[in-house]
Amino acid sequence: MRDHACLIVYGPDKRGVVAAVTGLLARHECNIVSLDQYTDNPDGGDYFQRVVFTRPHLTAALPELESELASTLKPFDMEFKLTDQSVPKRMAILASTSDHCLLDLLWRHRRGELPVTVPMVVSNHDVTADDVRTFGIPFFHVPSQHGPDKSQSEAEILKLLAGNVDFVVLARYMQILSNDFIEKVGVPVINIHHSFLPAFIGAGPYKKAKERGVKLVGATSHYVTEELDEGPIIEQDVVRVTHADTAVDLARRGAYVEREVLSRAVTWHAQDRVIRKGNHTIVF
Amino acid sequence: MRDHACLIVYGPDKRGVVAAVTGLLARHECNIVSLDQYTDNPDGGDYFQRVVFTRPHLTAALPELESELASTLKPFDMEFKLTDQSVPKRMAILASTSDHCLLDLLWRHRRGELPVTVPMVVSNHDVTADDVRTFGIPFFHVPSQHGPDKSQSEAEILKLLAGNVDFVVLARYMQILSNDFIEKVGVPVINIHHSFLPAFIGAGPYKKAKERGVKLVGATSHYVTEELDEGPIIEQDVVRVTHADTAVDLARRGAYVEREVLSRAVTWHAQDRVIRKGNHTIVF
Amino acid sequence: MRDHACLIVYGPDKRGVVAAVTGLLARHECNIVSLDQYTDNPDGGDYFQRVVFTRPHLTAALPELESELASTLKPFDMEFKLTDQSVPKRMAILASTSDHCLLDLLWRHRRGELPVTVPMVVSNHDVTADDVRTFGIPFFHVPSQHGPDKSQSEAEILKLLAGNVDFVVLARYMQILSNDFIEKVGVPVINIHHSFLPAFIGAGPYKKAKERGVKLVGATSHYVTEELDEGPIIEQDVVRVTHADTAVDLARRGAYVEREVLSRAVTWHAQDRVIRKGNHTIVF
Amino acid sequence: MRDHACLIVYGPDKRGVVAAVTGLLARHECNIVSLDQYTDNPDGGDYFQRVVFTRPHLTAALPELESELASTLKPFDMEFKLTDQSVPKRMAILASTSDHCLLDLLWRHRRGELPVTVPMVVSNHDVTADDVRTFGIPFFHVPSQHGPDKSQSEAEILKLLAGNVDFVVLARYMQILSNDFIEKVGVPVINIHHSFLPAFIGAGPYKKAKERGVKLVGATSHYVTEELDEGPIIEQDVVRVTHADTAVDLARRGAYVEREVLSRAVTWHAQDRVIRKGNHTIVF
Repeated sequence: MRDHACLIVYGPDKRGVVAAVTGLLARHECNIVSLDQYTDNPDGGDYFQRVVFTRPHLTAALPELESELASTLKPFDMEFKLTDQSVPKRMAILASTSDHCLLDLLWRHRRGELPVTVPMVVSNHDVTADDVRTFGIPFFHVPSQHGPDKSQSEAEILKLLAGNVDFVVLARYMQILSNDFIEKVGVPVINIHHSFLPAFIGAGPYKKAKERGVKLVGATSHYVTEELDEGPIIEQDVVRVTHADTAVDLARRGAYVEREVLSRAVTWHAQDRVIRKGNHTIVF
Repeated sequence: MRDHACLIVYGPDKRGVVAAVTGLLARHECNIVSLDQYTDNPDGGDYFQRVVFTRPHLTAALPELESELASTLKPFDMEFKLTDQSVPKRMAILASTSDHCLLDLLWRHRRGELPVTVPMVVSNHDVTADDVRTFGIPFFHVPSQHGPDKSQSEAEILKLLAGNVDFVVLARYMQILSNDFIEKVGVPVINIHHSFLPAFIGAGPYKKAKERGVKLVGATSHYVTEELDEGPIIEQDVVRVTHADTAVDLARRGAYVEREVLSRAVTWHAQDRVIRKGNHTIVF
Repeated sequence: MRDHACLIVYGPDKRGVVAAVTGLLARHECNIVSLDQYTDNPDGGDYFQRVVFTRPHLTAALPELESELASTLKPFDMEFKLTDQSVPKRMAILASTSDHCLLDLLWRHRRGELPVTVPMVVSNHDVTADDVRTFGIPFFHVPSQHGPDKSQSEAEILKLLAGNVDFVVLARYMQILSNDFIEKVGVPVINIHHSFLPAFIGAGPYKKAKERGVKLVGATSHYVTEELDEGPIIEQDVVRVTHADTAVDLARRGAYVEREVLSRAVTWHAQDRVIRKGNHTIVF
Repeated sequence: MRDHACLIVYGPDKRGVVAAVTGLLARHECNIVSLDQYTDNPDGGDYFQRVVFTRPHLTAALPELESELASTLKPFDMEFKLTDQSVPKRMAILASTSDHCLLDLLWRHRRGELPVTVPMVVSNHDVTADDVRTFGIPFFHVPSQHGPDKSQSEAEILKLLAGNVDFVVLARYMQILSNDFIEKVGVPVINIHHSFLPAFIGAGPYKKAKERGVKLVGATSHYVTEELDEGPIIEQDVVRVTHADTAVDLARRGAYVEREVLSRAVTWHAQDRVIRKGNHTIVF
């Protein structure tokens, strides 16, 4: 994505913002590659826009573009975020013993399909260490503390992440992160929940799904917030099951939905396609 | 389905029951058309079997078959239900103002795709009366009572149904039936709920779905029990939505999932494919 | 869609066109509701844009807008089409004996989900006449001529359509229209083919699908061109089948895919979401 | 699957075969775990049955069971195949440079989800050698011959396979096997084709799909026969694409459908769920 930039604009909807932004880009000889926009309420709602554009010698031009965007958007009272798409985001993965989501992310990364670098995998177990290192990725083993206080192991993880990552993915990481951790980590954290949220919140969703006798099981990728399994949903999908599937079968079939859903969510986040507003996401 | 019968066998799993049943059918010159079976737990679980078979002059032979099945299955401690598939089940439909599920059922029935007769449609509104009668189906208007006590209108509906129907379908009937009604009606009642249960139980599921920001909406058809939206699920399905869909859009797209899910559930019930055990269904 | 307009712009890609168009709209106090764009080749490809916008007293303002757009887009060498979305397109339906696609379109239209008027249904059979007229839609019976020459019945249909319709939908119309008809009709013609094209081109696709032993059957909606089943595809979908489904079962299950696919294609066409380029469609 | 056996019975349909087979199993104290059956034509068609059953000390009992089955089925003129499910099938994988199908199979095998052993991976390239050996699987590099005559490299592969494998999987193996090879290999060969067959037979299906402007791309797993891409289909699936996807995007999205479809086909084959009749499969 050499010489590609992504511009996100958002704020209270006002007439003329598309013209203002695209006019500025045209004057700077930028070529628009894609443009998406959305207003969540035609009467006084918020406006969201994503533009991807190219320009020769983009990196050198970014500071001036940034400053002009600031003055252009000030009268509109809108905020913006301009990112150089030639710089991949740095993604840390937290995992436990399950490898299906973890390995799928590492494969896709190696295939060149995820626009990220992976500076580290951190796990509270060491069973996946060899697999991870085969991909040339550093693996750190941080065992979970026994008992409800996880502050020491969380501190150790925070120290590894600090300054090194742009977002964190919980690839079936089976520890509940404390609110303190989520606050301190300072970057978005993406989780994969093994159910079609809001059904079967909390632990053991496949067992609960079997007990309720559902005919589809699903997976949900969402941003982690202080309320467990209540963060903004990025992506979801389901797969058909029958009465003959045991809870173990559900977990097995669900695993393949989990890895697809998580990889889509991670890709879209890495491409700056996901904008959060309250407990919702706009996915362009 | 002339000369076709369906035999359902169920009870605590024991070795030899398939052989006993199919042996009996072979001795009576019955041709097995399909056979499905399922044991919900290999160690001491329950056994469920569905056999469809044909035999010349079936109706005349049924009483003897029934009596021999009773003696054959007695040592196995299993129950059975033998139905003549040339006799379609009588299905009453309860509806309100929405017509998408109602008309889809009537139209599939007219196409010859639902193995049922439709002796009546009962509605608490009269807006669909002309449409229903165009299909040659009797329409009865039973307005809902105001206030929490619905005993009088429910009594009127029960009187219409009594002795005339084999099962009842709630095709987006927007009244909650009392436990008293469910007890007295004496036949299975199938509902279509406009969400992917157990998510968004109760009223206004599309509004709740919009508020939660889900990426799929769904529909669930289930048997009605005394607990609202908690009965055994027969069938479910979902459709993809985006942030740009309003709650009205969700309802609109969901409507087409509802009609598909309900018609599958009704077809399977009418074909004796659905067996209930506790809060679960086995769908053969 | 009062005071809503849709602007389609297309031609060889050039920098600055988004800015030019949105700048013009801003000067005319138009509010952009949605904007989609696509370039089919970053190096010298074609550019396609769809903008929906609102403006008070739109109808009165359209002529001036149209003339300014012409001058604005001239230096870009681009063409455009500006439509008043408060004026629904007039859709004629051609049908034969199958009613599933026909009735689904009429239902959706009556529910207010299709932004069209339906001035007429024309059929070479009269079996659906009563159903169609129940919806308050005129029904014309034009029997097909025997033999290969259909010029007289086609002339009769053309006379009915002339000046009265903006597009034609073949809702399982079982006659092959002559090239002469397609040329003379002068409006887009949308067909639903009962297979996942390009598999099973021509007659009897479900029979061919059964013979080949496929595990999915599908439907394809496309614009009709002079080459049978080769026109630009608008929408496709599939449904799972098994070895146990007969060719009749495939047709039955496929019918429900056909009606969904056709109604999506018709909706998108009616909303000016579909742009044709050669044998392809861009669907915004 | 200790003490589990699978019995396949097939031949011209006759009344009483279920009773005969299940009666024999009951007399031998076998517990039926699952039973599926299918008749492809109620009037003089063929009958197919699959029974999975358990019995203590199964292996010791198999020879006697086999001999009694032979006498029992003789009057029915039916053939059968009895397999000990505690003995996993030996699966060789042939691959080229693409790793998505190959690694997915190896990873599912390691997770214990494929009831097979993998005695070897053979490839005409060596790029996947390290990955394969990380899973503890032998890797053999057999470069393809230049020119149309591949007899020498095929002979080398045949020598590796001979006596060592029960079936062969072509996991995106980019060489066309000669009819001579298919005859000599003597075991079923399963291929994954990167399109929804019979659409886009032959090379470059994603490019052809882009050219035709389809809205879904798919994958097909089938048994290899002498006619290229014409063998009996085991499984198919599709994924939605848009006008904005390039041929490279189609290949990328299709890759994930390929790995799912191939792994389902391989699993079902390994579990003796797939029966071939002519160019069709019955999948129980």
